[in-house]
Amino acid sequence: MAQQTDIERLRDGIRGRDRRALAQGVTLIESERADHRDQAADLMESLRGAGQAVRIGLSGAPGAGKSTFIDSFGTMLTGQGRRVAVLAVDPSSALSGGSILGDKTRMERLARDPDAFVRPSPSRAHPGGVARSTRESVALCEAAGYDVVIVETVGVGQSEILVADVSDVFVLLVAPAGGDELQGVKRGIMEFCDVVLVNKADGDLRAAAERTCADYAGALRLLRRRPADPDGHPFAMAVSALREEGLDAAWKRIADLAEWRLAHGHLEDVRAAQARRWFEEEVRRSLLERIETPELRAKIVKAGVEVEEGAISVSAAVRRLLRSLGDL
Amino acid sequence: MAQQTDIERLRDGIRGRDRRALAQGVTLIESERADHRDQAADLMESLRGAGQAVRIGLSGAPGAGKSTFIDSFGTMLTGQGRRVAVLAVDPSSALSGGSILGDKTRMERLARDPDAFVRPSPSRAHPGGVARSTRESVALCEAAGYDVVIVETVGVGQSEILVADVSDVFVLLVAPAGGDELQGVKRGIMEFCDVVLVNKADGDLRAAAERTCADYAGALRLLRRRPADPDGHPFAMAVSALREEGLDAAWKRIADLAEWRLAHGHLEDVRAAQARRWFEEEVRRSLLERIETPELRAKIVKAGVEVEEGAISVSAAVRRLLRSLGDL
Repeated sequence: MAQQTDIERLRDGIRGRDRRALAQGVTLIESERADHRDQAADLMESLRGAGQAVRIGLSGAPGAGKSTFIDSFGTMLTGQGRRVAVLAVDPSSALSGGSILGDKTRMERLARDPDAFVRPSPSRAHPGGVARSTRESVALCEAAGYDVVIVETVGVGQSEILVADVSDVFVLLVAPAGGDELQGVKRGIMEFCDVVLVNKADGDLRAAAERTCADYAGALRLLRRRPADPDGHPFAMAVSALREEGLDAAWKRIADLAEWRLAHGHLEDVRAAQARRWFEEEVRRSLLERIETPELRAKIVKAGVEVEEGAISVSAAVRRLLRSLGDL
Repeated sequence: MAQQTDIERLRDGIRGRDRRALAQGVTLIESERADHRDQAADLMESLRGAGQAVRIGLSGAPGAGKSTFIDSFGTMLTGQGRRVAVLAVDPSSALSGGSILGDKTRMERLARDPDAFVRPSPSRAHPGGVARSTRESVALCEAAGYDVVIVETVGVGQSEILVADVSDVFVLLVAPAGGDELQGVKRGIMEFCDVVLVNKADGDLRAAAERTCADYAGALRLLRRRPADPDGHPFAMAVSALREEGLDAAWKRIADLAEWRLAHGHLEDVRAAQARRWFEEEVRRSLLERIETPELRAKIVKAGVEVEEGAISVSAAVRRLLRSLGDL
């Protein structure tokens, strides 16, 4: 009964746009404790369908200027009367124990901005858990009335796929580069980005940024656009987060693309299909969690090492393990 | 006892390079029947570690000339004294009931070649099953002494990821194209290909093929090579399967790359890690199969539809479903 009251208080706080309540809600969602999971489900259910934001996924290697970009871009948006949330997905934080993303000291203006919510990356090891909590955190921010939700990540492992999955428009931020340095773009990321923004198009780097932008535009032309998108997508633009140049033009094109996708029902379809897929993933993950006791987990790891060393074939190892379980 | 004898006969036939035994082995592996799965595990275990081939993944849209290319490329290789196996992964075959890949009439010379083994795509709906049987079929071909295993696919859904996963070198075959047609390359595929071969560099299309090749070379320079690879990778080349031009040069570069990766221990590491991952995937798939009764499956589908329609949140649907199962 007391718990229900807590959840109602959180729900009302989030709906009332109270940033502290939103932060507490995200913390609840990030918890893996069974009672917290249960309360989080109540909270999510009570906030279902509330609010809708433009969801921007943002990735970029260290050095691309993500912090400065988000600080300038977000501050521009709040200056235009929009409320902006920034969530971080940093797969390295689970290893290092601390996040380099979403750190409020990295975004000085935005962190002090009453119309912004900046949330560091959760430090958690379970990738499935990060995926779930990111999806639900985005929904909480929407319920709290944020107009734009930026989900940022560094280009490590599966994090970009996760971020692309929760965003309407996926943006890759890159620094100007000369010739061969362009090879530094991670294999894989070009495939699902909608927009490449070449940052630092200012001062001595302006010409290099323009060249880099042209190179990306050429590369993007080789990739088939999503069938539903209008002509000219995906696209590349040069911006300067430092001088705050090109940011509004970039926002307009990003918002136009999101609106176009929304108006043509594509976002709705995508989100409905996503929700169903997420549900099935979550059910399977939960079912496996139920049956994967520590003993079974230890068996799987032990057999996995034997397979890796070539001591047993995959099929034989699977059969041996399943037989050892009897009828479960 | 009789079954064991059958498996021993298959094993000896495959080791003895009997194509009929190999074909029977692949059929056994493709079966989902419990007793067949059991026999297949025996077969795989008895052939573990036998043989090693250069595994080439090959993808290309319809019209790229895959059949002609494999026919010419494979015939060239057998002419050089190599034994060549061709396996097909066609995700559409499960839908259409028939495969358009690996059809022996498409590769006339190779199908009649005693040093070649051509196997059409299995017609099966379960993606996890296709992944497993493809992996095991490659291993059977290696055990049967094939020097080169070509796994071909059309660019649909997850099939390219699967094929890239089982191959040492992944090749994308494309047709010459003018300007905007290059957009026809599927988003995603450029990311994990090691080689782009522009086919039909002959006759009227030669100049277009050279231009297309230069375009791809430019695009590939934007993608970071696998950290372990030598300079100049990934790369693009123009070939003519019809005139049999450039095929040997392409083979040499593909084989060099595979050898380089092998010599530097990268293939060994990759294959060991793959085997472990495959084992864990198979175990989880098998565990889920055990607990996903038709009743549970129906519940998941029903709840999934509710989630898709927005009638319930993902978290609440997961909780409701798990509660309805009690203690399993």
